[in-house]
Amino acid sequence: MRPQDLIRLKRDGGEMPEQAIRQFITDVSSGALPDYQVAALLMAIYLRGMSGAELSVWTDAMLRSGRVLDLSGVVGVKVDKHSTGGVGDKVSLCLAPLVAACGVPVPMISGRGLGHTGGTLDKLEAIPGFRTDLDVDRFVATVRDAGLALIGQTQDLAPADRKLYALRDVTSTVESIPLIASSIMSKKLAEGIDALVLDVKVGTGAFMKETDRARELAETLCAIGRDAGKQVTAFLTDMNQPLGREVGNANETREAIEILQGQGPDDLWQITRELGAEMLVLGRVARDSERGRQMMDRARADGSGLERLRRCIELQGGEPRVVEQVDLLPGARIRRDVKAERSGVLCRVETEQVGVAGMLLGAGRRSAEDLVDHGVGLTVHARLGQQIRSGDPLVTLHINDESAVEAATSAIHAAFVLGHGPVTPPPLIHEVLR
Amino acid sequence: MRPQDLIRLKRDGGEMPEQAIRQFITDVSSGALPDYQVAALLMAIYLRGMSGAELSVWTDAMLRSGRVLDLSGVVGVKVDKHSTGGVGDKVSLCLAPLVAACGVPVPMISGRGLGHTGGTLDKLEAIPGFRTDLDVDRFVATVRDAGLALIGQTQDLAPADRKLYALRDVTSTVESIPLIASSIMSKKLAEGIDALVLDVKVGTGAFMKETDRARELAETLCAIGRDAGKQVTAFLTDMNQPLGREVGNANETREAIEILQGQGPDDLWQITRELGAEMLVLGRVARDSERGRQMMDRARADGSGLERLRRCIELQGGEPRVVEQVDLLPGARIRRDVKAERSGVLCRVETEQVGVAGMLLGAGRRSAEDLVDHGVGLTVHARLGQQIRSGDPLVTLHINDESAVEAATSAIHAAFVLGHGPVTPPPLIHEVLR
Repeated sequence: MRPQDLIRLKRDGGEMPEQAIRQFITDVSSGALPDYQVAALLMAIYLRGMSGAELSVWTDAMLRSGRVLDLSGVVGVKVDKHSTGGVGDKVSLCLAPLVAACGVPVPMISGRGLGHTGGTLDKLEAIPGFRTDLDVDRFVATVRDAGLALIGQTQDLAPADRKLYALRDVTSTVESIPLIASSIMSKKLAEGIDALVLDVKVGTGAFMKETDRARELAETLCAIGRDAGKQVTAFLTDMNQPLGREVGNANETREAIEILQGQGPDDLWQITRELGAEMLVLGRVARDSERGRQMMDRARADGSGLERLRRCIELQGGEPRVVEQVDLLPGARIRRDVKAERSGVLCRVETEQVGVAGMLLGAGRRSAEDLVDHGVGLTVHARLGQQIRSGDPLVTLHINDESAVEAATSAIHAAFVLGHGPVTPPPLIHEVLR
Repeated sequence: MRPQDLIRLKRDGGEMPEQAIRQFITDVSSGALPDYQVAALLMAIYLRGMSGAELSVWTDAMLRSGRVLDLSGVVGVKVDKHSTGGVGDKVSLCLAPLVAACGVPVPMISGRGLGHTGGTLDKLEAIPGFRTDLDVDRFVATVRDAGLALIGQTQDLAPADRKLYALRDVTSTVESIPLIASSIMSKKLAEGIDALVLDVKVGTGAFMKETDRARELAETLCAIGRDAGKQVTAFLTDMNQPLGREVGNANETREAIEILQGQGPDDLWQITRELGAEMLVLGRVARDSERGRQMMDRARADGSGLERLRRCIELQGGEPRVVEQVDLLPGARIRRDVKAERSGVLCRVETEQVGVAGMLLGAGRRSAEDLVDHGVGLTVHARLGQQIRSGDPLVTLHINDESAVEAATSAIHAAFVLGHGPVTPPPLIHEVLR
């Protein structure tokens, strides 16, 4: 089928044949197809959607556009977690070591932050010396030794996705559930995992602001996983305020280490514990979620999770003493409180604006080429439903470059909406789809 | 507005602001915009449409992407005719000289054939020596002298349309009414005309197979013309069988000359007469259509139409004696009848297939780079509603290359559907929109 005939078919709402999808993805990867035909098809898919059958073939073709890792040399059921991204989401950093400590290997390939969201790779790179660009052999060896490894996407995993994503970004075809879901799943399935837990964020700081859209994405992700023969559980978790207290890179890593030390904020621990318990069930070391939670509690209490992180940092070239001495992580020169300008109950947080404030300070990227400052960020004091008095600190900014303070302060004031109570804080976990 | 923001706006069904449309078309013309962003917007427009206001700005921007001819040096109200294309449509060749003979100048810029449809330029180039690539000064001088000139699009008229059309062709975004209408009107308005008669073909040999779609296109074209301050009348005319008897280049030119000689088939004359009468009304030399018809009849009867064509051919470098000696036009070596294989009433003609048969013989182009053989084509004997006996000739093929005869014969047999009568032939003119 000629590319223009495939475009016409999808344009008119038809079902793309398997062979035509595979040829299309092959030609995207090889560069044989001109970008304008790819762009036209992406827009047609954006507006017409894809059936479940089309989507599974599309994802499988993307997955096979590159290398699929072979983790058969690692004993056990390999389980990964993926989050759709939010503000203050440092769950991977405390979750993966705890799950590994309970006997489930976690081969985790993560991304970088963009716009208002942070990325696991940037947080890890706040650790002096930490390398996220291991080759495959060292990645596998690290999973086998530490029980986990935390790296960035290599060039040879799902290269079709990288090409499509670059084009989607400039043709306004990013926010399409089938295109998002196939992008996520092609990369995750290329890791050679056996099962996957998905953390689909929903709320003012998430890509999916409404529960219906988040659920549709979660269901689509689960269906792709099922068609690929993998066990997938999706959690819809709350992103109507930052997760935990810290936003930035070094300070998020610090907060994740605190969780492993038995401290840290309760919301962050509860999400970590629930996702971890599910990973232990999927990884067949816990018979049910309750047993999984107990195992997570023990791995936190006995320090075995912290030890796994220490070993992983060591194997990936980082300074392992950060797990006891968090002040080895970079910091910011200046701290400045942003104070409430009136009294009231915190009834809404425009969480995306909190992420933007962090980005403005240098913790995030406006575009993919930007460099981040690992030491800057912000600490959030105000929580939804809390009574705030005029002059109370809403947020503490951690600053190296004062030029961005004014804009970040404005973003914070716009983000924290004070009104009349009472306000019921949203549940941490909205839904679980198995 | 960034291109991706304009794409997003249209993707979501919004109204594009005037300034953003003008910038987009400017950037398409200059090549500043990557093809993939243009392709994404074209697909979004295909699926979301354009409002009347958007479309008028879009067309005006395309028109202004290049030169707009100044025909103020030609006395009179300048009127052109445009056909959306069909099979056997040689109306321009007999219409323009007759209208010119009645005192209305006709500056006509035409196109080439593609696929199943023929093009006026190819038919003209069947005349030995005829040049369709006049420069603007000579075009204007020819209109002033002969009352008409028949040329091809120059590089500097609506260049944005040429770029967009090339991209639409390979991204399956051709068949969009707003994109078709803006393409037609930007080129016609660039001719510097005062009024326009549109011949929107409807039926099995037209781009618009259904009356509703044809009417929508006609209404869209009229609205753009009205917004541009031009008088426009649209005729919906029948294309459920070839117009006239001849299909091809030299043989269509021959048939048009026969009309000017007072002969030729009645359907071709009736359409020519009606369109011409309307052009004379819009050109303000006839007070109403009935008077216009009388003037057309006289210009045919007294030979003044034929004389105008002779003069035009002479000024455009062609052999003027063809208007008396049609055998100076090229012919084909071989004639072969395609005969009915059974008896019945001709109840349907797949007219597009008749056009394809002509293309297969070499009269048309599969793709824009192909060369045409001006001497080949076919003569159609069977008309809708006619009783056909087994063995009657349906069509006579005019052939130079026998290798295509089998495929052309198959196309003809598939095109002429015999059944049980009676069949009421469709009206020549379905509707008139003023």
